[in-house]
Amino acid sequence: MRLTLDQAAAVLSAGAARAKSAGIAVCVAVLDDAGHLKAFSRMVGAWLGSVDVAMTKARTSVLFQAETQAIGEVCKPGAEAAGLERSNGGLVTFAGGIPLLSSDGALIGAVGVSGGRVAEDFEIARAAAGALQT
Amino acid sequence: MRLTLDQAAAVLSAGAARAKSAGIAVCVAVLDDAGHLKAFSRMVGAWLGSVDVAMTKARTSVLFQAETQAIGEVCKPGAEAAGLERSNGGLVTFAGGIPLLSSDGALIGAVGVSGGRVAEDFEIARAAAGALQT
Amino acid sequence: MRLTLDQAAAVLSAGAARAKSAGIAVCVAVLDDAGHLKAFSRMVGAWLGSVDVAMTKARTSVLFQAETQAIGEVCKPGAEAAGLERSNGGLVTFAGGIPLLSSDGALIGAVGVSGGRVAEDFEIARAAAGALQT
Amino acid sequence: MRLTLDQAAAVLSAGAARAKSAGIAVCVAVLDDAGHLKAFSRMVGAWLGSVDVAMTKARTSVLFQAETQAIGEVCKPGAEAAGLERSNGGLVTFAGGIPLLSSDGALIGAVGVSGGRVAEDFEIARAAAGALQT
Repeated sequence: MRLTLDQAAAVLSAGAARAKSAGIAVCVAVLDDAGHLKAFSRMVGAWLGSVDVAMTKARTSVLFQAETQAIGEVCKPGAEAAGLERSNGGLVTFAGGIPLLSSDGALIGAVGVSGGRVAEDFEIARAAAGALQT
Repeated sequence: MRLTLDQAAAVLSAGAARAKSAGIAVCVAVLDDAGHLKAFSRMVGAWLGSVDVAMTKARTSVLFQAETQAIGEVCKPGAEAAGLERSNGGLVTFAGGIPLLSSDGALIGAVGVSGGRVAEDFEIARAAAGALQT
Repeated sequence: MRLTLDQAAAVLSAGAARAKSAGIAVCVAVLDDAGHLKAFSRMVGAWLGSVDVAMTKARTSVLFQAETQAIGEVCKPGAEAAGLERSNGGLVTFAGGIPLLSSDGALIGAVGVSGGRVAEDFEIARAAAGALQT
Repeated sequence: MRLTLDQAAAVLSAGAARAKSAGIAVCVAVLDDAGHLKAFSRMVGAWLGSVDVAMTKARTSVLFQAETQAIGEVCKPGAEAAGLERSNGGLVTFAGGIPLLSSDGALIGAVGVSGGRVAEDFEIARAAAGALQT
């Protein structure tokens, strides 16, 4: 199953709506299951630095098929894969990247959010991912 | 005046509608007046190579405040700025990138389209840029 | 349909066999339909520079769903997309990259060959691509 | 002595067989003694992020002629070469990269494995390296 543009747009909208209600300006990036950009939105006032962070969060989730903070766990100093965060041109290892799964559990892409505090980005990314209709 | 996300979304939608009616799948990128990504859409079936080309067309238009094919003219072998296309990490110098202007003529961003023949990309980019409401 | 490792190995083997019979040492790269490396072989004596060229030929074919020399036609000086070869981190625009298609014509990857004269690379890539079983 | 493609293929096959019997999908990369890619396989289902990690593990082993986890020891925070992991474009410093040695102990290349837990990657890399016939 391939992610459609309508699906991606629904994910972006849900993320933006959640951010707005929290009074935060964010970037939201949606990638396909191979890590290529599918759709993207930057809200007025979002940090310019969040363009790259949102994309890299989503890319990190695609590359290792997990939420970014879970990848962060195995990369911690002393953890088994410490240093993994330098691979693939650099990963983001805190929350805000979430895989998008089809109804049968297959990876079809990922969403990445950046612009708020990490816990806020995570909530917004969850709202965004939850809007995926498959 | 700053480009809003609603404005960018209207530009994307108009580009996608024009591409659809022409039976072409494209990528459309909207950048702000500083060349940072504002919004992006990739239609199902668009070439993966068009992600970069659409963004670079829009970036080229922002960097020199002109349509990409006009920049191509001054870069031609023998023309006065031959080689300019290698600056700024590489420009795209054929049609499909168009500046977005406010009602008083100030640059507020650019749109870039890639996915069809060059003449088609140009028509789609014009339709997209024409949907800007300022 | 996803390219399997057995399919990719058959493509590599056919390419190496053809190169061997021609007395040439080559690199053969097989990528999936999103441009990620699937399988690769470098024969003894192949130029080290061919590692990158073979991969980039295959990547070019994936990005624009065409044989590399066809992309070269639209990139020629004076052609409509002159300069496209600088996009996507650099394309290879001479022969030796060929899309891999499923039996219903869908793109499932690409093969790239480098190591001989361009016409030789093309023949080897054709032999390699012809070994795909779908 | 130069690593042949047959030798590299035997290393790849042994790695894939070991991974399969463990129910894991991995990438296996074989580099020559100069760090150039010789042969590569990605099993269906392997993380896309493992393409880079497998290659970088093998590259790390070539660059310092040691298993990756041994290099990790000298890079640890507080250890004598802390920060070495940022050299050479980035090293991988956990297990899964193993030098390939000729029968007289000379370095002829390295194998890198990524796709499972670190201990699994290590076992698979050992099985792969053990298949080298010199």
